[in-house]
Amino acid sequence: MRSQDIAKQPIGIFDSGVGGLTVYRALHERLPNERFVYLGDTARVPYGTKSLSTVERYALENSSFLASRGIKILVVACNTASALALPKIRAKIGIDVIGVIGPGARKAVTLTENEESPRVAVIATEATVSSNAYADSIHAASSTAEVFQSACPLFVPLAEENWVDEPETRSIAERYLKGVRDFDPQALVLGCTHYPILRDVIQKAVGADVALIDSGEATAEEVENLLKDKALANPDQISYNRERSLCDDLDHFYVTDAADRFARVAERFLGAVPTKLEAIEVYGKDELATRRKS
Amino acid sequence: MRSQDIAKQPIGIFDSGVGGLTVYRALHERLPNERFVYLGDTARVPYGTKSLSTVERYALENSSFLASRGIKILVVACNTASALALPKIRAKIGIDVIGVIGPGARKAVTLTENEESPRVAVIATEATVSSNAYADSIHAASSTAEVFQSACPLFVPLAEENWVDEPETRSIAERYLKGVRDFDPQALVLGCTHYPILRDVIQKAVGADVALIDSGEATAEEVENLLKDKALANPDQISYNRERSLCDDLDHFYVTDAADRFARVAERFLGAVPTKLEAIEVYGKDELATRRKS
Repeated sequence: MRSQDIAKQPIGIFDSGVGGLTVYRALHERLPNERFVYLGDTARVPYGTKSLSTVERYALENSSFLASRGIKILVVACNTASALALPKIRAKIGIDVIGVIGPGARKAVTLTENEESPRVAVIATEATVSSNAYADSIHAASSTAEVFQSACPLFVPLAEENWVDEPETRSIAERYLKGVRDFDPQALVLGCTHYPILRDVIQKAVGADVALIDSGEATAEEVENLLKDKALANPDQISYNRERSLCDDLDHFYVTDAADRFARVAERFLGAVPTKLEAIEVYGKDELATRRKS
Repeated sequence: MRSQDIAKQPIGIFDSGVGGLTVYRALHERLPNERFVYLGDTARVPYGTKSLSTVERYALENSSFLASRGIKILVVACNTASALALPKIRAKIGIDVIGVIGPGARKAVTLTENEESPRVAVIATEATVSSNAYADSIHAASSTAEVFQSACPLFVPLAEENWVDEPETRSIAERYLKGVRDFDPQALVLGCTHYPILRDVIQKAVGADVALIDSGEATAEEVENLLKDKALANPDQISYNRERSLCDDLDHFYVTDAADRFARVAERFLGAVPTKLEAIEVYGKDELATRRKS
């Protein structure tokens, strides 16, 4: 395929479920001239409490499905899959793969590198915390940074209930984030795609002087740079010819189960319902496309 | 197989994950002379937010796996699978199958049948509530009972966090159960296997005069009667020869993922860690055993 044709392909995004919609939103806002194909693995959500080998298998099946749709790069929007499965995906798939952990970690280092003792806190799922992926990525970018990690399992169901300002949510945030406050970081990475939905309550609990880092936004910045570096930006001037909006008919959404529930939560998270939404199966699809890097 | 040999087989139990351990506990307490084989589908938990066809597929694969181990009856401990998949399982498997919905519903009717206007409330997952399975079962047993149903999605993660007496849990219970209090029932069915873990906080929120029904306990009663009726009680006098305890070496536990996490939550729920615990795969195992009813 000619590189011009590859650049016209959409960007693939997968997540364990609905949480990756916050990453989709960040990508869509930064790159309105691109088209997106999103896969939410709602039949097997959540990944955050599952084992390495299971998360790897699910991630490979999802990547394979998206590769078969024809995508120019793959964004792994799920923090758990980014923490556990990136090497396996990269080894199998012939296009660039960007996870959310590296960009979030590098952004945290950039924001704190002028501090005398840089301190970065990370909140994430049990599996992401146990993997140490954020701490490893932060230390790869800064050997002096101190890192504190904490799991906040109730934040995901609270976000899906849309309890963004309930007193119970505030109280749970105070409790979960006490360790973060004691650590007194300059930056706090929201290391789970659901957490930006609770951004305000998290900011209040840790104090206004802590910089919150949305890994999705950091990822969108790196994707923009990658498209420039590799001349993969879409040559069709779609955003000049028409107004783009979230979930419009240029973006295609797939789920592995319960499309109606996905649409309902998408409306809560994005204020919009996907125009194109299909339920599909990805089981056993780990024979990845063999298209080579451009 | 001779009926005597069939009676020596264990009782199979499956659940979407760890919640069914409360049903296992109720069965074990009532039937100390029986052996149990438990399967927790931890790779695909939770079922409560998934679609009918997906829950059916998972339930058939789980049932098939347990049937292949040699069991005399199958208890579907998962409320969602009991609500959605019982007909399919019964159509495929050649042994008696007992779900938790029917026993819980019948117990509620028994407890309220002398009331002038019997009112039963049910709390459960989104999928169980939407299925209307409890309301249908209650109305099948009593045409005059009024039924009120409500979903409490945060109760499952709160139970798994073991936040059984935290102020946030009490406050969330007050909020979720306001509709139940307004309905003023005589009985409240705990229609999700996780909810008995939060029994005390639920009782406080609805008031001491509401009878709480643990579907697991109601199911254990019906299993005991079935064993008597069909002469399937274990003829080996194991509980006379030794002290039984929860999770001892006569019971076998299987999970489809993350055995370490299962053991951790089992310890929280039961105060004991399974002696025999194995991680296995059940995918694609929907070719059910063809052993006929005894």
